[in-house]
Amino acid sequence: MVSKALAKYIRSLHQRKYRQRHAAFLVEGAKSVLELLGSGLEVEHLLATPAFAPQLASPRHPPVQLATEDELTQLGTLQTNAAALAVVRRPPEVPLLPTLPAGRLVLALDNVADPGNLGTLWRLADWYGLPGVVLSENCADPYNPKAVAASMGAFGRVPVWADVDLAAWLSSLPAGIGVYGADLEGDNVHKLHLQPAGVLVMGSESHGLSPDVAARLTRRLHIPHGPGGRAESLNVAVSAAILLDNFFRNS
Amino acid sequence: MVSKALAKYIRSLHQRKYRQRHAAFLVEGAKSVLELLGSGLEVEHLLATPAFAPQLASPRHPPVQLATEDELTQLGTLQTNAAALAVVRRPPEVPLLPTLPAGRLVLALDNVADPGNLGTLWRLADWYGLPGVVLSENCADPYNPKAVAASMGAFGRVPVWADVDLAAWLSSLPAGIGVYGADLEGDNVHKLHLQPAGVLVMGSESHGLSPDVAARLTRRLHIPHGPGGRAESLNVAVSAAILLDNFFRNS
Repeated sequence: MVSKALAKYIRSLHQRKYRQRHAAFLVEGAKSVLELLGSGLEVEHLLATPAFAPQLASPRHPPVQLATEDELTQLGTLQTNAAALAVVRRPPEVPLLPTLPAGRLVLALDNVADPGNLGTLWRLADWYGLPGVVLSENCADPYNPKAVAASMGAFGRVPVWADVDLAAWLSSLPAGIGVYGADLEGDNVHKLHLQPAGVLVMGSESHGLSPDVAARLTRRLHIPHGPGGRAESLNVAVSAAILLDNFFRNS
Repeated sequence: MVSKALAKYIRSLHQRKYRQRHAAFLVEGAKSVLELLGSGLEVEHLLATPAFAPQLASPRHPPVQLATEDELTQLGTLQTNAAALAVVRRPPEVPLLPTLPAGRLVLALDNVADPGNLGTLWRLADWYGLPGVVLSENCADPYNPKAVAASMGAFGRVPVWADVDLAAWLSSLPAGIGVYGADLEGDNVHKLHLQPAGVLVMGSESHGLSPDVAARLTRRLHIPHGPGGRAESLNVAVSAAILLDNFFRNS
């Protein structure tokens, strides 16, 4: 039986305002909670069904509180949750600037508003071993439950820097750092020999890069259509994936 | 004012069962409805706000019925719809087998259950100019409103074949047709010189390819991680995008 106070606290974390106020977020479902326990993140509360609880016992984490599937489903945001739910401390952000590692590629997102897209991009950063993802002020909250779920465990492995003034940050980078972005008028990525160092900036789903950010690009990249292809654009995570594969194929 | 009978009909099309019974589906929002009118699809009903209606007038389509934003939002599945909604005839499917065009690449989806992913893959097929997308029996309905929206107009340009017994169809293809699928143990796509001909099969979000389908692959493809990358897998649309870029970069 989950206490009323805890239930109220958990439900408050569906909202960004309370996630920020409490510096905490939810991780839901079997797979994500197992990924969580393999990460270095600090767990505040761990709830699981009696059937799933034995998989979660660990001296590093608070004891598992038992809950029914109905309780987990009612407390969380998933359509059904038959396994587990955790309340997790938001990790402290390290300062952004000194952490841009030399010779590595950082992903930056400009107004990516859909939490599912943001999570998919986070997962992609995890696949390519990127040192982090920089988020502009109007991006979705990375700790939105949908973003956490779509990240498939990247939330515990790849740092994010949220609410960054992207144009100002890009301007502050040392000269010589490559700043890349997708552009229909850009250079064909198949003809370049890209190296994974610098910053790859992806724009919003509906409006692309904001003008202030676009002005900071040092190179515009174009993904070629197939012959006869007619779609006007690609999904933002899909574009980022193709670009990252083109960066890393030469490394 | 939308009649009660039409409102009931439109709302029934939120459900797959009624979309199938009526061989019709919904297209919602400004961008998708404009794409629709540029396609060859047959429109049954066209509803729009007084402000948006003038953009839709065309002798080829039924006259626009005016509706308020509230009405459109209540009738449809979008969170808000301030522009237009259409009821569209599902296009007749041509027989699948004789249409596998020689020297072209077809995308096949095996149990891709999420309509958003399915729509994003459809859009990707449109970007690469693929001749069509083959869907296994347990895929999401391509005419689910979320799939239609995520396809970004591909619903009007790229044919789909739904409810196909994928293993049987792959077995029926002439010998010599390449059947490709993603596999962590497959050949590194960066080392191959892939040509866009044959069938690329993508598996379900959670279980990959079903064994019957996997048994029909003639080549397994592996997308390399970046150095230090730790994600176990990639989103299905993201994987398909990277593979398609690798197929078309040599063409």
